[in-house]
Amino acid sequence: MGNNSVKQAKISVAQFHKLCEERLPFAHEMGLELLEIKDGTVLMRANYSEKYLRPGGTVSGPVMMALADAAMYALVLSRIGPVELAVTTNLSINFLRKPLPGDILAEARMLKLGKRLAVGEVSLYSDDKSGTLPRDNPVAHVTATYSIPPQSA
Amino acid sequence: MGNNSVKQAKISVAQFHKLCEERLPFAHEMGLELLEIKDGTVLMRANYSEKYLRPGGTVSGPVMMALADAAMYALVLSRIGPVELAVTTNLSINFLRKPLPGDILAEARMLKLGKRLAVGEVSLYSDDKSGTLPRDNPVAHVTATYSIPPQSA
Amino acid sequence: MGNNSVKQAKISVAQFHKLCEERLPFAHEMGLELLEIKDGTVLMRANYSEKYLRPGGTVSGPVMMALADAAMYALVLSRIGPVELAVTTNLSINFLRKPLPGDILAEARMLKLGKRLAVGEVSLYSDDKSGTLPRDNPVAHVTATYSIPPQSA
Amino acid sequence: MGNNSVKQAKISVAQFHKLCEERLPFAHEMGLELLEIKDGTVLMRANYSEKYLRPGGTVSGPVMMALADAAMYALVLSRIGPVELAVTTNLSINFLRKPLPGDILAEARMLKLGKRLAVGEVSLYSDDKSGTLPRDNPVAHVTATYSIPPQSA
Repeated sequence: MGNNSVKQAKISVAQFHKLCEERLPFAHEMGLELLEIKDGTVLMRANYSEKYLRPGGTVSGPVMMALADAAMYALVLSRIGPVELAVTTNLSINFLRKPLPGDILAEARMLKLGKRLAVGEVSLYSDDKSGTLPRDNPVAHVTATYSIPPQSA
Repeated sequence: MGNNSVKQAKISVAQFHKLCEERLPFAHEMGLELLEIKDGTVLMRANYSEKYLRPGGTVSGPVMMALADAAMYALVLSRIGPVELAVTTNLSINFLRKPLPGDILAEARMLKLGKRLAVGEVSLYSDDKSGTLPRDNPVAHVTATYSIPPQSA
Repeated sequence: MGNNSVKQAKISVAQFHKLCEERLPFAHEMGLELLEIKDGTVLMRANYSEKYLRPGGTVSGPVMMALADAAMYALVLSRIGPVELAVTTNLSINFLRKPLPGDILAEARMLKLGKRLAVGEVSLYSDDKSGTLPRDNPVAHVTATYSIPPQSA
Repeated sequence: MGNNSVKQAKISVAQFHKLCEERLPFAHEMGLELLEIKDGTVLMRANYSEKYLRPGGTVSGPVMMALADAAMYALVLSRIGPVELAVTTNLSINFLRKPLPGDILAEARMLKLGKRLAVGEVSLYSDDKSGTLPRDNPVAHVTATYSIPPQSA
C-alpha cells in the first residue's frame, strides 16, 4: 500500500488545535492554523503578522521552519494518532523564493511511514488568495524525519 | 588563510542587537541574545520562557532552529559587515538529545566563506550554567548556507 | 513562469552520454543511463550489477547518491545548456525503503532555477519493469542544489 | 558520558577491510582505505585514480559522498560491533572547496549514539601529504544518520 492511500485521519483538526493551544504555545502564538487533513496530506497556514518580517520586506526563515515542522507533526499524528512524544530528528529546508509579506501555506505529504521513523516533505507557498496552491512556485521546500516512540503503533 | 583566523568582527554585539530589535521582531520577541563574537565564532543564547515548551517537557524544535539561524546570521554579518540582505538558502538540523527546559546556547563557526555563499555549522547545547559549553553533549547540530548579495564584499 | 513549463531541453540525451563517457568516468563506469529529458524532468537509470550490493542484499547508498547527483546534473544542463562547471553545493538524501537488488530509476525535477543556484528534487525507485514509476513507494528522496557559474546564462 | 570518550573499538581496521572486500564491492573497487580508528574517530582515505575526475579537473561529488558514507559506517561499527545491517537513513553534504585531483581524507566523529539512531559528522580534506589534516580548509562537510537494527546493542 502506498503512502497516501489513507482512509481516515487519526486526529481531527479540532484535536490538533487543542493540542497546540495547550501544549505548543510557540506554534499557537505564531498564528499557525491547521486547515485540512485530507487524502493523506495536511494543509496548514501561518497567519501573517508584522513580527514575521525580516530585512528585505519578506517573511523570516524561522517562521517557515516552524510552519513546516508543525505541518509535519500534524501529518504524523494524523497517521499514528495523538502520540505527542513523536519528535523531529532531522529537518532540512531549502529557501527557494522570497515570500511576499503575507500568509504562508504549507502542504505536507508522507514519503514513508515506518514503525520507527516517518519521513515527509513539505512545500511552502505564499498564499495568493486564489484558492489553489501555486505549485510551480514554492517559496521553500522541506524534508523532515520524525521518530515514533516504541509501542505507539 | 583558514576559516577562523579572523582579526576583527565587522559588526558588534550592540549593532546586531539593534538590528534584531528594529528589523527582526520574531527573533527579538523570542528572547535571542548575542553573547559574543570572538575568534571567528559566535555565541548566542535563547533565554528560556515557558512558551518554548513542547510535549515531553522539552524545548520545541522551532526555537532551536530560530536560534541556530540567528547565530549563523550574526556569524555571516561579523564577516561581511551589516549586509542585511544576506539570506539563508539551506538549513539542515539534526536533533540529538532532549534539551532541558532552560536556556539554549548556540555556537556558530564558519566552514567556508565564499563570495556568493557562506556555509557554517552551529552546535546547540542546554546551558548547564557551568560557564563552559558541554561540547560532548550537543542537543542539536545545524549546517546552514547563506547567500551573499552581489557587491556586498 | 513556473519551474516545469519548459519548451526545449538545452542538451540532448546523446550529448549528455558523450559528456559522461569523456568527462565523468565514475558515472559512466557505474552504468548510469539517461533515459529521457521531457516536460522539464529527467529520467535516469542505474543499470544493476553485483558490485551495487551491500549487506542485506540491497543496493548500497553511494550508488543511489551517485545516480541522484547525475540526474540532477542532467536536469540542470537541460536548462542552462552544456555548462560543465555547474557543481553541486548541497545534497541531502533520505533513504526510505530497502531497494531490490536490481535497476534503480531516478526522476529529477526542478524546484527553482535561479541565476546563481538551481534547486531540485530527485525521487528514486526500484524498477519493477511495469513501465511506470511506483510513485507511492520511492526507495529514496533527494534534494540538491547546484551552483551555476557566472555568465553561463 | 560524552560522545568521544571511547575505550576500545568494537571492530578492527582489518575486520572492516575484510567486510568491504567481501560485502561492499562498490567501496572496495573505489579504493577506500580505513586508516585508523582512534579516540572515537575514524580516518579514511579515498585513493585517487583518474576515474574520480569530473569537469573542472576536480574530484566528483559521488566519490566524496561514498567516502563519507563509508567512514560513517566504520565509525558506527567501531561503536556497536560488526552489525552489518546498520543502514544510512539520512546523509547531507555541503561541498565547500574544489578538491585537488588527489587523495581525499575523511575524518568521522559521533555526535550522538543512541539505541536506534547514530548521528555523526564527517569532514573531508584534500590530502596535502603534510601528515596533518588541513582542518581550516575542508573540501566538504557531511552529517549522516544511521539506523541501528533492534537487539544489536
